[in-house]
Amino acid sequence: MNQTLSLLFSHHSDRSFTDEPVSEEALCSILEAARRAPTTSNAQHVSVVVVRDAARRARIAEFAGNQAWIAKAPVFLTIVIDVYKTGVAVDAAGGKLVYPETVESLLAGVTDAGIVLATMLTAARSLGLGIVPIGGIRRNPQAIIDFLELPPNSFPLVGMCVGHVDQPAKQKPRLPMKVFRHDERYHREGMAEAIAAYDAVFLQYGKDAGQANAKTWSKGTAGAYQYADGRPVKSVLQKQGFTLER
Amino acid sequence: MNQTLSLLFSHHSDRSFTDEPVSEEALCSILEAARRAPTTSNAQHVSVVVVRDAARRARIAEFAGNQAWIAKAPVFLTIVIDVYKTGVAVDAAGGKLVYPETVESLLAGVTDAGIVLATMLTAARSLGLGIVPIGGIRRNPQAIIDFLELPPNSFPLVGMCVGHVDQPAKQKPRLPMKVFRHDERYHREGMAEAIAAYDAVFLQYGKDAGQANAKTWSKGTAGAYQYADGRPVKSVLQKQGFTLER
Repeated sequence: MNQTLSLLFSHHSDRSFTDEPVSEEALCSILEAARRAPTTSNAQHVSVVVVRDAARRARIAEFAGNQAWIAKAPVFLTIVIDVYKTGVAVDAAGGKLVYPETVESLLAGVTDAGIVLATMLTAARSLGLGIVPIGGIRRNPQAIIDFLELPPNSFPLVGMCVGHVDQPAKQKPRLPMKVFRHDERYHREGMAEAIAAYDAVFLQYGKDAGQANAKTWSKGTAGAYQYADGRPVKSVLQKQGFTLER
Repeated sequence: MNQTLSLLFSHHSDRSFTDEPVSEEALCSILEAARRAPTTSNAQHVSVVVVRDAARRARIAEFAGNQAWIAKAPVFLTIVIDVYKTGVAVDAAGGKLVYPETVESLLAGVTDAGIVLATMLTAARSLGLGIVPIGGIRRNPQAIIDFLELPPNSFPLVGMCVGHVDQPAKQKPRLPMKVFRHDERYHREGMAEAIAAYDAVFLQYGKDAGQANAKTWSKGTAGAYQYADGRPVKSVLQKQGFTLER
């Protein structure tokens, strides 16, 4: 197996970091990998805001629901869907920016931001660094927008902690390949059984990890998915210019 | 520089493939890397449909706007946002699935699908294979849904060709790091100038590649972004259950 595959197969988040800084050279490599990553129609509508300042990371940790590893890891990267930048190009060419009114603009921007996240975490891990992806910045996207001074037609989608690992974490079990891979067409049969088998594995993983509230994956997922969570995502997206109109 | 970084720095799409099949072993590695990739709140709401059948690939090539490389490359992977699967778990736990009514569900699903795309293309390229990401399956998402027999609460976001490269392609120039990386906060200053400099580089790249309609990046972007494209994305998403209601 090649180095890259073994890195990808061993993916996990480390939530425990030392105080050792991330070198500027490592950070440049992580960002260069992301800049070279694929992007829908070469639109390049993603930007990354690098926060190293400890007091500023502590603020972001609060906005994201008091996630201590954001304050602890020496670098926090915010991945921003950035159609402001493409708007500057449209202005330069004498056009008018209509694109953010479409749901398609959101799909393209979010896909590209996901690509940037995956590329940066692979690059960071190849350098021996630990990472944690942070969706929790969407708990209070307006606070992040104000704090990072983001322009109109942009949105802070997801973040990522980077640092040197203190206590390495274990890899979490995933659903079996059977319900991830579908040959030629989607297959619904056997899904409930495969999920039931995974539930048992996942519950045991939680117990082994000493979780007081260990539960099956189905119970955890049901807990999260049976209500519409309170993240003010739609209103902030619309205010930023992603109107979802068409 | 380590192998993984040099792979990421050299990313490009190859649109020219030989007839050599992709081995089942390689395909399994690509999918295993994706199954292990990070996913929002461990929700795992992504599935991948593998199409090898040549006649079926030819049909998908048509749906995606006659992209010949989909018919030519021996494997086509469709990355599906899949909240149907999480719905099975919610059912098992006796809950009711409300999540797809939220814009948040779309952001989480699309982010995770982008992560799966980036992970699969890195895995494939580490095995010496060529790839092309295909956003064009969103030109006619309903046709793809019917053809792949996708369930409710799922949506085919993006595809990927995989095969052995015939004529390798060159890497496209990207916007300068200055407008991708922002330190501590977003910086608007200097953006127009950086884009103007890139426009000149990009125009020359197009001319060198012998493109009859070579244009600056700003002109190309303005051409695409000053109108709302006709992709019926919003209506099909809503029909599938992603109502965008809240």
